[in-house]
Amino acid sequence: MATCGLNESSQASPEVRAVYDDIMATRRVDWISNFWKALAHDATLLGRTWRSIKEVLAPARLDALTKEMLYLAVSVTNQCPYCIASHTAAARKAGMSEEMFAELMAVVGMANETNRLASGYQVEIDPQFKA
Amino acid sequence: MATCGLNESSQASPEVRAVYDDIMATRRVDWISNFWKALAHDATLLGRTWRSIKEVLAPARLDALTKEMLYLAVSVTNQCPYCIASHTAAARKAGMSEEMFAELMAVVGMANETNRLASGYQVEIDPQFKA
Amino acid sequence: MATCGLNESSQASPEVRAVYDDIMATRRVDWISNFWKALAHDATLLGRTWRSIKEVLAPARLDALTKEMLYLAVSVTNQCPYCIASHTAAARKAGMSEEMFAELMAVVGMANETNRLASGYQVEIDPQFKA
Amino acid sequence: MATCGLNESSQASPEVRAVYDDIMATRRVDWISNFWKALAHDATLLGRTWRSIKEVLAPARLDALTKEMLYLAVSVTNQCPYCIASHTAAARKAGMSEEMFAELMAVVGMANETNRLASGYQVEIDPQFKA
Amino acid sequence: MATCGLNESSQASPEVRAVYDDIMATRRVDWISNFWKALAHDATLLGRTWRSIKEVLAPARLDALTKEMLYLAVSVTNQCPYCIASHTAAARKAGMSEEMFAELMAVVGMANETNRLASGYQVEIDPQFKA
Amino acid sequence: MATCGLNESSQASPEVRAVYDDIMATRRVDWISNFWKALAHDATLLGRTWRSIKEVLAPARLDALTKEMLYLAVSVTNQCPYCIASHTAAARKAGMSEEMFAELMAVVGMANETNRLASGYQVEIDPQFKA
Repeated sequence: MATCGLNESSQASPEVRAVYDDIMATRRVDWISNFWKALAHDATLLGRTWRSIKEVLAPARLDALTKEMLYLAVSVTNQCPYCIASHTAAARKAGMSEEMFAELMAVVGMANETNRLASGYQVEIDPQFKA
Repeated sequence: MATCGLNESSQASPEVRAVYDDIMATRRVDWISNFWKALAHDATLLGRTWRSIKEVLAPARLDALTKEMLYLAVSVTNQCPYCIASHTAAARKAGMSEEMFAELMAVVGMANETNRLASGYQVEIDPQFKA
Repeated sequence: MATCGLNESSQASPEVRAVYDDIMATRRVDWISNFWKALAHDATLLGRTWRSIKEVLAPARLDALTKEMLYLAVSVTNQCPYCIASHTAAARKAGMSEEMFAELMAVVGMANETNRLASGYQVEIDPQFKA
Repeated sequence: MATCGLNESSQASPEVRAVYDDIMATRRVDWISNFWKALAHDATLLGRTWRSIKEVLAPARLDALTKEMLYLAVSVTNQCPYCIASHTAAARKAGMSEEMFAELMAVVGMANETNRLASGYQVEIDPQFKA
Repeated sequence: MATCGLNESSQASPEVRAVYDDIMATRRVDWISNFWKALAHDATLLGRTWRSIKEVLAPARLDALTKEMLYLAVSVTNQCPYCIASHTAAARKAGMSEEMFAELMAVVGMANETNRLASGYQVEIDPQFKA
Repeated sequence: MATCGLNESSQASPEVRAVYDDIMATRRVDWISNFWKALAHDATLLGRTWRSIKEVLAPARLDALTKEMLYLAVSVTNQCPYCIASHTAAARKAGMSEEMFAELMAVVGMANETNRLASGYQVEIDPQFKA
C-alpha cells in the first residue's frame, strides 16, 4: 500500500478536493489515480505537482501526444513501473498506436545502449556539437 | 582521448570506410563524429551499432524529429554529456526550435521528478492502467 | 524468492548467527529482515556489509534520523522497492513524521528534476562553486 | 557553453529580471548562477522551477541544512557534476562542515551499494515493512 | 501483463516463428521466454534485438560465462527485476556457482558505492589514467 | 579540484599513510591516485573503503581480470568518468586486451538496451526464472 495510505475523495479536505476536481475536468475522466491520492496527504505537494504537470503537458509547440511519449521514454529509462503503466495508458489515449509504441521503445533502447558506448569509450565532444 | 583512440578515415579498413560512407550519405554530412571513430576499432561493433541506429531512427509512424527528441530525452535522463551535445545538434537539424527544446526539457524534468514520487510513495498500479 | 534462498537463524553457522545477534542488539529488534538472510549465504559479504552499515549509520556529527533520511533519499532516487520500504520504516522509527516524509519527498523530487535540467541545458559550473 | 546560451541580467526581460531579483533576495547573494541563466531563455520554465525550489527548500519541519544535504545526496547519486558543485556550496553555506560532508558521503555510498544488493539478491519485502 | 500482450508461437507469423526457432536452437531450450514474446508484436524489433544479442553473447575473447556475468552486473546496477531473474538463470546455466554469484554481487555493490564517492568528492582524473 | 582537496602523503597522518602504504604494496605501484587522496580527509571512510575494495577485488572463485571487468561494466552503466578511466586502466593491467574491451562494451550496451525493453514492455517474470 502507498506509504501514507490513499487520500480518498470522500475524506479529502476542500483544498484537496479542488485539485481532484481540476484533474478530472482537465483530463476528462471521472476517477483519480492512486498517484494523486498518495501525494494528497500533503496538500502543498499535491497542488504544486499537479499545477506543474498541467502546465508542462499542455499542448504548445509540442502536441499532447509527443509530450506523453517523451514522458513515457523517461519513465522507461528510469524503469518506474507505476509511471510506465500510467503513461502508456495516457499516451494511448492521446493517440499512440502499437506501432508507434514499438518505434518509441526501439529508440529508447538504442539511446540507452549508445549512451553507455559514448561514456564507456570516453568519447570527447566534437567541436561541431558545441553550442 | 577516447579509450582506444579514434579510427580516422585515412587509416581505416575498407569495411570501416564503407560504414563511414554510409553514415555520411544517410546523414548528408561530410564528416564523421568521434563516437563512430571511437567504436571503429571494433568493426563488428561499429557495423551493428550503425545499422541498428539507422533502422531505429528512420522515419516511419514517428517522424525524424520526434525520434530525435525521444533520443535526447533519454540522453538527458541518463545525463550523458556526449549524447546530449550530439543529439541536441541532431534534433535541431531535424527541426527542433528553442521553444520546442524548452518544452522537451520541462517534460523530462517533471517526468524525472514524478518517477521518484511514484516510487517513493510506494504507489500501487491502478487496475485501470493494467494492460 | 531471494536468489539463494534465505538463511534462517536456525540453520545458520555460528559466524552468521553472531552477526544476526549483533544486528538485533544494535537495532533493538527481535527479528532479522530478509535482506540480511539473503546475504547470509556468503558469511564474508554479510559480515562486511553489516559492519559497514553499522559504522556508517551510527550517530556522529549527523544524528540517526538525518542519516536514515539521507539513506531513504538515495533509495528513492534509485527506485529500489525493498530499500524504500525498509528505510521508510527505519526513518519512521528514528522519528520521521509524515510531514517530514512529505518534505523529504518534495526535495528528492525537485533534485531529480533539476539534475536533468542542469545536465540537459549543458550548464557549466560557475567559478564560485569550484572547490 | 549552455545549450541556449546564458540570459544575462542586462539583456533579460522584466519578467526574468523579477525572478533574478527574488533569487538574490531569497538567497542573500548578489549574483545569479549559470543554472538560472541557462533556464531563463524560457521565462515560464524559469519561473516555475524557481518557485518550486523556493517552496521546497524553505525550512519547515526539516531545517535548511537537512534539506540541502538531501539535495546533495540525490545529486551525488545521479552523478550530476553541476548539481554536486552547486549544492555542496549551498550545503556548506547552510552549515555543513567537512566532517558532516564525509558522513553524508559514507551514507550515500553505502545506500547505493545496498540498493543493488537488495535488488540483485531479489529480496522480497518483509511483511513488517509494508505500510 | 505485457503492454501489447504475448505473441504465442501458435499465433505467430512465419517470420516471428523463424526467430523463435533460432532462439530455441541457439540456446538449446524448448520454450520461449516472455521477453521475446512481448517484443514479437514488432517483428523488426524482435529480429534486430535477437540478432544483436546472439552476436554479442557468442563466446569469443570472452567466454559465455564471463559475458553472462557482465550482463547480470549491468542488470543489477539498473535494478531491472526481469533481467536480474532471467540473467541469473542464464549465468547459472553457463556455470556460475553460488560462490561466484556472491563475489559478483560484492563487486557490483562496491562499484556502485565508489562510483558515487568519486563523483561526490569531485575527484579529477589522474594523468596516469588518461588514454 | 576535489571537494575537500587532496590529502598528499607528505601531510598525511600516520593512520592515512599506513593505508597509502598498503594500497601501494597490494597494487604494486609507487603512487596514490586522486580517489584515495580525496577520501583521505576522513581516515575512517578511507580505511573502510580500502579494506572493502581490497577484500572484494582479491582473486577467489573469480579471477582478478573478471572482477576488474565487472567493476568496469558497472562504472560504464553508471557513466562515472573517473571510475571508467581508472578501472579501464586497472582492467588493462590485469590483462584486458582491446578486443576484450570491445566485447565487454558490446555486452554492456545490449544489457542497458534490453533492461529498458523488458521494463518498458512490462514483461512478467517467467515461472522458470523464479529462484
